[in-house]
Amino acid sequence: MENINEDILKLKGEAPHLEIKNDLIRNMTSDNLYHLALSTRTHNFKEMFQDIKFVCVGGSSKRMEKFAQFIASELGIKTPCINLASETDRYALFKAGPVLIASHGIGTPSISIVMHEILKLLYHARCQDKVTFFRLGTCGGLGLKPGTVVISDTAVDGLFREKYEARLDGAFCGYTQDQKMAFLIEAYKKGVRNIEMESLCFLAMCHQANVKGAVICVTLLDRLKSDQISETKTTLKEWEERPAKIALRYIKSELSKN
Amino acid sequence: MENINEDILKLKGEAPHLEIKNDLIRNMTSDNLYHLALSTRTHNFKEMFQDIKFVCVGGSSKRMEKFAQFIASELGIKTPCINLASETDRYALFKAGPVLIASHGIGTPSISIVMHEILKLLYHARCQDKVTFFRLGTCGGLGLKPGTVVISDTAVDGLFREKYEARLDGAFCGYTQDQKMAFLIEAYKKGVRNIEMESLCFLAMCHQANVKGAVICVTLLDRLKSDQISETKTTLKEWEERPAKIALRYIKSELSKN
Repeated sequence: MENINEDILKLKGEAPHLEIKNDLIRNMTSDNLYHLALSTRTHNFKEMFQDIKFVCVGGSSKRMEKFAQFIASELGIKTPCINLASETDRYALFKAGPVLIASHGIGTPSISIVMHEILKLLYHARCQDKVTFFRLGTCGGLGLKPGTVVISDTAVDGLFREKYEARLDGAFCGYTQDQKMAFLIEAYKKGVRNIEMESLCFLAMCHQANVKGAVICVTLLDRLKSDQISETKTTLKEWEERPAKIALRYIKSELSKN
Repeated sequence: MENINEDILKLKGEAPHLEIKNDLIRNMTSDNLYHLALSTRTHNFKEMFQDIKFVCVGGSSKRMEKFAQFIASELGIKTPCINLASETDRYALFKAGPVLIASHGIGTPSISIVMHEILKLLYHARCQDKVTFFRLGTCGGLGLKPGTVVISDTAVDGLFREKYEARLDGAFCGYTQDQKMAFLIEAYKKGVRNIEMESLCFLAMCHQANVKGAVICVTLLDRLKSDQISETKTTLKEWEERPAKIALRYIKSELSKN
């Protein structure tokens, strides 16, 4: 059983990259990451996760498992990618060498929970390296050919504000179809190119935690034309791999710098 | 391939209990329930789901699968409970005789998506009976012994209003621990006894769709005392079965009336 208090005192100042602004974490004797089914009382976070350099999250657990296997194979990692959160099914969590991979479910509440727990996990693990976060997702596109990969340079809320206020990341409620389309066209004119539900929260939390964050999404449809996804599964699966490949490329390139 | 338009015209007025307020559904030639991986083009909803009388939703897919098996066994249903949404892992969907069982993930966005798709599914299936919805969940309690089952008589938002406005079902963001505790105490004084994330949206949508809705949750902790869940897995699993047993009792009782 790990004594976090003691450990924290001992290691004070040795995890400079993560900023957990809630001071309560510094006075906990143990921490139970409920939604990941991991606890400092039963797991040695430092041993398990101290080498993490990248965190990749995406909505679907099956997709993230496939991504973990892909990363492991590509990085030549022999350790099998088992689901470290297998005691729960809220989220799935995998580790492929220095890459932590997690599913985040649907929507801001869902992603905000797993982001909280991952950040606490990294804090308790005392990661020495600056960690980089990715969200690898699917989304609706605006005026882009379906299958297009969008790397966001800005995330905005439903009022086009570049800030995350809980519960303002969507603005469709109570809209008629016409109003929704007018909104989408306005969004397009303002430079928006894709829509999904988690980037804003994801990036705000990366920002708060002082970690780098990237959003890489593949569009599954053009929302200016349709709101139904009608591609074959094979096509969708192929598209879903695209953000993964880009992230891999970046990760490989970063790792080759060491 | 089913022609929904023709079907709808033919059956107009024959699904009186469900109110889908968005008229667009009446002019669709096909409907692709993306997050359930079911489409009217590839599945015969009427054949598959017309006999549905109850819908039970809960956060975790494993839990809902167990619930489906439990219901099937208790209702003497021989058909195996396979995941009807197995082509995706966003949600899990099971059918045990007249009971449709689905997971809804975490938070209002996540549950609102599956509720939308389930309601559309029932509409397309032309369910003849009034359908009753349940949310079977876990939650934080207020001033209750952990393990207590709460059957909600009212759902309120973070401002204690008995209405659902998207993105106002939680009010903790930016709160200090003291403010949060003050809020919880205020909530307790106002009669709130448990906290979770989906009931408000769930009940609002049941209301809009003119279906009955019940919320049955088991508390896993007393939030006036702690915000960490520390019970053993065995205990938690036993607790999680409690709402299921109550729902089963109701379902059995309703079925015995026929």
